[in-house]
Amino acid sequence: MKQSQPVRLTMVGGGSWATALVKILSENNVSIKWWLRKSSDAEHIKKFGHNPSYLSDVQINTRKVKVCIKIREAVRDSEFIILAVPAAFIGDALTGLKPEHFAGKWVISAIKGMIPSANQLVTDWVSNQYDVPPERMAVIAGPCHAEEVALEKQSYLTIASPDSDSAKRVADLLRCRFVQTTPVDDIYGIEYAAVMKNIIALACGITRGLGYGDNFQAVLVSNAMQEIRRFVDAVYPKHRDLSGSAYLGDLLVTAYSPFSRNRTFGTLIGRGYTIQSAQAEMNMIAEGYYAVKSIHEINKQFNVDMPITRAVYCILYERASPTAEMNKLKGELM
Amino acid sequence: MKQSQPVRLTMVGGGSWATALVKILSENNVSIKWWLRKSSDAEHIKKFGHNPSYLSDVQINTRKVKVCIKIREAVRDSEFIILAVPAAFIGDALTGLKPEHFAGKWVISAIKGMIPSANQLVTDWVSNQYDVPPERMAVIAGPCHAEEVALEKQSYLTIASPDSDSAKRVADLLRCRFVQTTPVDDIYGIEYAAVMKNIIALACGITRGLGYGDNFQAVLVSNAMQEIRRFVDAVYPKHRDLSGSAYLGDLLVTAYSPFSRNRTFGTLIGRGYTIQSAQAEMNMIAEGYYAVKSIHEINKQFNVDMPITRAVYCILYERASPTAEMNKLKGELM
Repeated sequence: MKQSQPVRLTMVGGGSWATALVKILSENNVSIKWWLRKSSDAEHIKKFGHNPSYLSDVQINTRKVKVCIKIREAVRDSEFIILAVPAAFIGDALTGLKPEHFAGKWVISAIKGMIPSANQLVTDWVSNQYDVPPERMAVIAGPCHAEEVALEKQSYLTIASPDSDSAKRVADLLRCRFVQTTPVDDIYGIEYAAVMKNIIALACGITRGLGYGDNFQAVLVSNAMQEIRRFVDAVYPKHRDLSGSAYLGDLLVTAYSPFSRNRTFGTLIGRGYTIQSAQAEMNMIAEGYYAVKSIHEINKQFNVDMPITRAVYCILYERASPTAEMNKLKGELM
Repeated sequence: MKQSQPVRLTMVGGGSWATALVKILSENNVSIKWWLRKSSDAEHIKKFGHNPSYLSDVQINTRKVKVCIKIREAVRDSEFIILAVPAAFIGDALTGLKPEHFAGKWVISAIKGMIPSANQLVTDWVSNQYDVPPERMAVIAGPCHAEEVALEKQSYLTIASPDSDSAKRVADLLRCRFVQTTPVDDIYGIEYAAVMKNIIALACGITRGLGYGDNFQAVLVSNAMQEIRRFVDAVYPKHRDLSGSAYLGDLLVTAYSPFSRNRTFGTLIGRGYTIQSAQAEMNMIAEGYYAVKSIHEINKQFNVDMPITRAVYCILYERASPTAEMNKLKGELM
């Protein structure tokens, strides 16, 4: 029996999540053009089949994956474009592309952040900039550390799209030996929850850094789930069960895991590092740093009660003392 | 100004949670008779002001706390009786007491387990055995490791009673410098959730022992919240927000914390220990071991879909292979 034609995909981004997604997708019948900004990384992958900068143990199947440093070439002929760069860099990554380059393609965001300059969700921004109809947009969510994908640990992804057929198609692409996928329709709720969980991870880190313990963190995360629900229900009202893996699970893996850079960033802040020195120490972007500003701005319209987000915002953007802010927050939790 | 009369309390139990509660209560204007089964521990506390067996760093305020090894003497003249022994031993601890010894008193359960012989919640059993009216019963819940109370880490307790005045009274007793308390009315929902979280912690431990990672655990806990809701809503229908600290928070602190003995017990099982050798290794009761049998029995009436509980039950009581059960469960989560 002849195998059907491989699905043609473009992966945009060279970080750990992009690398993990390339690994997952390569389990299936696909042909991937992988765009990386760093030409030296691209060269290394072509030569040795490993990304030298992230998840370098992962073997890249170079029969299925072709690296590429020109974005136009990377998206040409693709059916699906997957975006996996930090939100702040998406504009740079897509420089030179016009709406016609996206015509007829599915665009899938694997980014958990807001476009800082626009206070917009990634899908909204892409949809506006490149005239991609919402039913051709999807989001990859779920509690999924790239590091565990590299180890082929059993993982779960939730694929959200307003169009159920699109969600199902993308879910099929990402299902493999060690990953189960579930298609759902709440794209905006899931995207907002994914953005907000990074803010909560910052809060968890800050309180850790200040010496609060597990008892406090459990209460903080419980209250965070209520805060996320209040916000998401206000911004995008819809019936949703926030105990789903894409909401609660994603928050848990970020708030509790040592791999979380948002939590690590917060811990440094809680220990008294300045924002500059914490950023220098980490050498990675903590998406929550930008997210808290965007969510704070957006909430000016909605006025949702968000004590945790407010505390993190004041600490990161108004030079409030972490000790004083968390002391105040402590009294508002229950 | 003369201080008002101290509130007269009995603490039943000599373990770590009893010791932590004695520490919290001693922050307030109370007079505690502390019943311990082990007379050598009672003697040690009287002499040195420390419980030699649990949380031995905690200084006991012996002006407020009198130890006592006779249960009748311990409950005499008390306004509040707090039960803090493992559920399996509550009958033993209260041997010799009759309904009249409970007359006019509040009975507060700090136990997170079922009475194994009766498949009953502790409050139901006490209420039946000793004719305590439900409005005089309360439950102490919340994400609260005794070990962190010993260190005076900021903690939160939820106090549930069908009678709002009783809940408030008990909440007032337990509020102190480092503990905030919230009175609520969902006593049965909170008690069931507290029982079930130990089963989930066992499941988390088993999968850890088998090598599953953080991604899987986040999905397991998310699905667990849905399983708990289905069960509690079936057994005791009521409007409740399961993201409250007493439900979700309590599950998190148990499922994610290294202090959790249920999780530790599960990890040993996952690694291939027999139940007997795991119990011998731990030298402590894992409440979840009994709880899973009771919940399994109770669910025969309700037929709620409970894949996680079923997996743990089959592993612990039907000698099912942890690998095979978790493999099956893996396919049922999303």
